[in-house]
Amino acid sequence: MSDTNALDTLIQALRGLPGVGVKSAQRMAFHLLQHDRPAAQFLSRALQQAADTVHHCERCHTFTQDAVCSTCLDERRDRSQLCVVETPADQSAMERTGAYKGLYFVLMGKLSPLDGVGPNDLGFKKLFDRACDGVVQEVILATNFTAEGEATAYVIAEGLKARGLRPTRLARGVPVGSELEYVDLGTIAHALVDRR
Amino acid sequence: MSDTNALDTLIQALRGLPGVGVKSAQRMAFHLLQHDRPAAQFLSRALQQAADTVHHCERCHTFTQDAVCSTCLDERRDRSQLCVVETPADQSAMERTGAYKGLYFVLMGKLSPLDGVGPNDLGFKKLFDRACDGVVQEVILATNFTAEGEATAYVIAEGLKARGLRPTRLARGVPVGSELEYVDLGTIAHALVDRR
Repeated sequence: MSDTNALDTLIQALRGLPGVGVKSAQRMAFHLLQHDRPAAQFLSRALQQAADTVHHCERCHTFTQDAVCSTCLDERRDRSQLCVVETPADQSAMERTGAYKGLYFVLMGKLSPLDGVGPNDLGFKKLFDRACDGVVQEVILATNFTAEGEATAYVIAEGLKARGLRPTRLARGVPVGSELEYVDLGTIAHALVDRR
Repeated sequence: MSDTNALDTLIQALRGLPGVGVKSAQRMAFHLLQHDRPAAQFLSRALQQAADTVHHCERCHTFTQDAVCSTCLDERRDRSQLCVVETPADQSAMERTGAYKGLYFVLMGKLSPLDGVGPNDLGFKKLFDRACDGVVQEVILATNFTAEGEATAYVIAEGLKARGLRPTRLARGVPVGSELEYVDLGTIAHALVDRR
C-alpha cells in the first residue's frame, strides 16, 4: 500500500487525538478527503498556529497567546480572591456563572498517582508563590468533586494553611432543580452536614 | 477572550471532524496543547500533505497519490472481475479476506436521496464505462447490506444489465460462528431462500 502513504499517515495522526480509535480515524480521514478538504486545511493551519503561539499565562497558568492573559490583566477583577480550577474548561464554566469576579489559577491537571502525576508535575510551588503575593486574601478551591479532584484540593489546602492562608472549597449539596428522591445518598448526606 | 484566539480557532476547526462536538473538541485541543504538541504538529503536517497529494485513482476511483493506484497496476490481479464497494474501508475489508484477486471500483459513497446524493454524484457513468472495457466479465456488487447500499446495488445492477454485463451480489446469509437462536429473522429468511 505504498501509494496510500499520505492517507495512512493521516489516519495514524488522527489516532493521536484522545478518544479516537482506528475506525473513527479512518472515517475522519475519508470524510475530510472526500467531502471537506477546506476543513482539513483549516484544521492543519489551526493546529500549527495553536502549537506555535499558545502557551501558559505567567500568572494563572491558563492558555494564552500573550505573556499574561486578559483575565489576569483585567483591572476590574477582585485581586483578593484566587480560584483554583483543574482546566481552562472548568475556568470557562466558572466564568459563565457570572457569580465570580476574582482571579484564577489553572492547574492544568489533577493529582493522579496512578498516572504518575504528583504535586511537582502540577506546579503547586507556583500556585503557593502566587497565593502568597500579599494581595490574595482567600483561595477558593474549585477542583472537581471526583476522587482525584478532592485529593488535589486537600493537598493544596494543607499547603496553603501551612503558609497562613485561608482556603475555601465550593459547597457540596443538592443540585439546583433536583428532587431529593433522585439525588444520590452521598450528596444528600453532605448537604445535611453542611446545612445552613 | 481575544487572547485565546488561536485556541478558539483550533476548537472550531476540530469540530469540523465527523462525530466531534464542542466538548470533545475542547478536550482534544487541551490534550494536544497540554500534553502532546508533537502530535498536534504531526497531525497538522499529515492533514496538509494528504489534502495536497491524495486524489482519486483514474481507474478505480479509490484514494491514491499516483495517477493509477497500485491495486489497478498489479499485474497478478484478475482483470475479468470488478468488485464495486462503497468506500476504501470496505475495499480494505475485502482485501483482508484474501479471497478476492480481481480489481475494484470504489464508489466513494452510496445513493442517498435524503442527503441529495444521486447517481450523477457517485459517478455511475464512470463505473459503467470502466465495466464495459471488454475485459471485465463479472461485476461483483459489494455495497453494504443497508437500505442505501441495497438501493445502490440495484441501480448499478440495472445499468449493467442494460449494457449486457452480468452483475453478481455478495451472498446474504447467516454470519460465520453465529447461533440461529440469536440471528435476526430477516437474515435467516434470506439464508433459507438462498439455500444451496
